[in-house]
Amino acid sequence: MNKVEHIGIAVNSVSQAADIYQKLLNTQVYKTEIVESEGVLTAFLQTGPNKIELLQALNDDSPIAKFITKKGEGIHHIAFEVDDIVAEIQRLKNEGFVLLNDVPKHGADNKLVCFVHPKSANGVLIELCQRI
Amino acid sequence: MNKVEHIGIAVNSVSQAADIYQKLLNTQVYKTEIVESEGVLTAFLQTGPNKIELLQALNDDSPIAKFITKKGEGIHHIAFEVDDIVAEIQRLKNEGFVLLNDVPKHGADNKLVCFVHPKSANGVLIELCQRI
Repeated sequence: MNKVEHIGIAVNSVSQAADIYQKLLNTQVYKTEIVESEGVLTAFLQTGPNKIELLQALNDDSPIAKFITKKGEGIHHIAFEVDDIVAEIQRLKNEGFVLLNDVPKHGADNKLVCFVHPKSANGVLIELCQRI
Repeated sequence: MNKVEHIGIAVNSVSQAADIYQKLLNTQVYKTEIVESEGVLTAFLQTGPNKIELLQALNDDSPIAKFITKKGEGIHHIAFEVDDIVAEIQRLKNEGFVLLNDVPKHGADNKLVCFVHPKSANGVLIELCQRI
């Protein structure tokens, strides 16, 4: 795997959190995007080679709504950039990791993504992402 | 702020978690270190320009022991690299952020560090770190 592509943070309000993170990182949100399949509004900030993705649920079925109900606002996932997501999925399956999706799906920011179950990674939800 | 210097993950056992994260990231732990002041054993893995820091409590008073008791294993903090930690502390105070320490302290991996209170950052514990 390559760099941390982004860190996803579950928030109640992207506009409120964007105000905070713009001050914290001393930079501006460069993109907002709705991901219908996940029921989320996202906003991205860049810091060096890495990104922070703020995630707000748009409906009660969104994984972000469920996360916040259970744990409150906070870090939701870490996404690592990969060169070949299909090969990485196969490598991780061979190593015994449990994946939430075996076939890459379309995520935010024009990426193919796959998630590793938090039970496989000490409670951390891991995303693999490959630029399309 | 600059890149994500590292992401800290609270784990029950650094040796067990190192086995998992070495497979996940397809790399080896390059350093382990005890930070007496925090009561933690740490292990570091590099992935591109970023690091993963695995953190195991060495006693019940360690912040990591308290975190795991409350929330279980998982992501503990995000650390951002800064060029001038004293200037960044002042900038964040001026922006209204609540800091856990106003004066930089010595952290793992030969760094000066400062923490921003999670209540100031949507439930995320933020670390600033400057290489000594």
